[in-house]
Amino acid sequence: MIDDAMVSINGEITSGTEAKISIFDRGFLFGDSVYEVTHTYKYRPVKFDEHLDRLWRSAQGLNIEITYSKEDIIKLTSELIAHFKIPNVYLRIVLTRGEGEIGLDPKFATKNNLIIIIQALPENPSWWYDKGVEMIIADTIRTPIDSVDPKIKSGNYLNNVMAYAEAKKRGAFDAIMLNHQGHITEGTTNNIWLVKDGVVKTPSLNEGLLSGITRHAVLEICQNNHMDYKIESITPEEIKDADEAFLTSSTKHIVPVVKIDDQLIGNGKPGEYAKKILKLYRNSIEN
Amino acid sequence: MIDDAMVSINGEITSGTEAKISIFDRGFLFGDSVYEVTHTYKYRPVKFDEHLDRLWRSAQGLNIEITYSKEDIIKLTSELIAHFKIPNVYLRIVLTRGEGEIGLDPKFATKNNLIIIIQALPENPSWWYDKGVEMIIADTIRTPIDSVDPKIKSGNYLNNVMAYAEAKKRGAFDAIMLNHQGHITEGTTNNIWLVKDGVVKTPSLNEGLLSGITRHAVLEICQNNHMDYKIESITPEEIKDADEAFLTSSTKHIVPVVKIDDQLIGNGKPGEYAKKILKLYRNSIEN
Repeated sequence: MIDDAMVSINGEITSGTEAKISIFDRGFLFGDSVYEVTHTYKYRPVKFDEHLDRLWRSAQGLNIEITYSKEDIIKLTSELIAHFKIPNVYLRIVLTRGEGEIGLDPKFATKNNLIIIIQALPENPSWWYDKGVEMIIADTIRTPIDSVDPKIKSGNYLNNVMAYAEAKKRGAFDAIMLNHQGHITEGTTNNIWLVKDGVVKTPSLNEGLLSGITRHAVLEICQNNHMDYKIESITPEEIKDADEAFLTSSTKHIVPVVKIDDQLIGNGKPGEYAKKILKLYRNSIEN
Repeated sequence: MIDDAMVSINGEITSGTEAKISIFDRGFLFGDSVYEVTHTYKYRPVKFDEHLDRLWRSAQGLNIEITYSKEDIIKLTSELIAHFKIPNVYLRIVLTRGEGEIGLDPKFATKNNLIIIIQALPENPSWWYDKGVEMIIADTIRTPIDSVDPKIKSGNYLNNVMAYAEAKKRGAFDAIMLNHQGHITEGTTNNIWLVKDGVVKTPSLNEGLLSGITRHAVLEICQNNHMDYKIESITPEEIKDADEAFLTSSTKHIVPVVKIDDQLIGNGKPGEYAKKILKLYRNSIEN
């Protein structure tokens, strides 16, 4: 995958294998960076404005000053997409505080490093949508808001890496992470939903989770299609007792969750809400 | 500082300005790395065995398999030190899970990247020791043990970066971080101590803090010099009411803390214990 990636580093386009950054970059030393992931559809990054808005909010949360304008990033991304010549690709934008003298003081950073990565996006396996996926409740607890707020999409991702490793160890697709109150926050790279008695539910941002772009889109879909929905706390017991469950992500869209730990969700098959919302979501980004 | 650093990347020695790493390295993407910092004295890394042991423990905490042996790292470090030709230098060793396909799964990493950085170590300002330093209690709460254990010295350092930024904003030398129980854990890159009624105290590792190499050395100094010491919980109120306070770090050694928030500690001057322990510590590493 590295072999066929194309990367723009501060506007200079290079191959994946040649794409390198200073070891004095704070993104490398401290994870002192913010990022976004989406994909393109017919050469256009999906919901790019929303992703750039969130990149800016993440940077603000860490007091990272962004010296690029949104127009700069849009232009550099377009150049890279044009160069890559494939209509539907994976797109990752990483912005670091920059490189400088080693030390925690953010002032040591002299100038942002902006890395835009494009690579082939293998089609998501159809079984995710046809059969649904299995998740676990992780032992690793989501980093709390007052330590590093999970709504900041940063390069400090070990918390999620460890939860994901738990999932792999237990043969699951991904892990659901709880907060210290024992409430569901999110998957390691996705938001979590349930449907019970015709009501769609997802946790509030106050529980400590990312403000997903697809999460926001799904809430709008519910609103516009007269589906009842609620944003409120969810316990593991509650989601295991739901009629259906699903996850949302910018690259995976809407994926039914049919089992959590050893508990089948509903009848253990993808639910009608997930199917309907997936269809509406895909229509919205393809038109 | 980057200009005059020398770096070994997987054994290849390069200048600081040329030292680069793949943007697909998981240290850059996720902070999926562990590290150590010490300094050399007369060309020998101080307490190197202890630092390497801790590097291994940190890697184990993240299930990072280290393909280098300790002897490999000692050899590569010695080469770099010999190359640099300055007896007392700053030494940082960063070991990442490696580079590979983008994704949380640790299995995507193919091979460790080992980065050894050496640069000039400006002498610590004498006023740190003569006058002491001022600290604040940070609003940023130390990441709890069940999210990412602070005893793992990893590349996820935003929690500390944010606390340090608070200190700088308030004109302080550094910040003391509390845990969710309201107890003192550590400074952003150092361990914290108080002395009250002739008893030296520092928090237990169970509070969520790094197992400092200098912390360990100071406990031994107390033991060997018949100073009473206790390892137990410390509240902000308690340290502000102490007779003296100090911090310990591998590069700063023992630095008296004379003020915390708006509260002078003791008489607001460096205490006798800090001075005595500093002298004993420096003797121990210089002989």
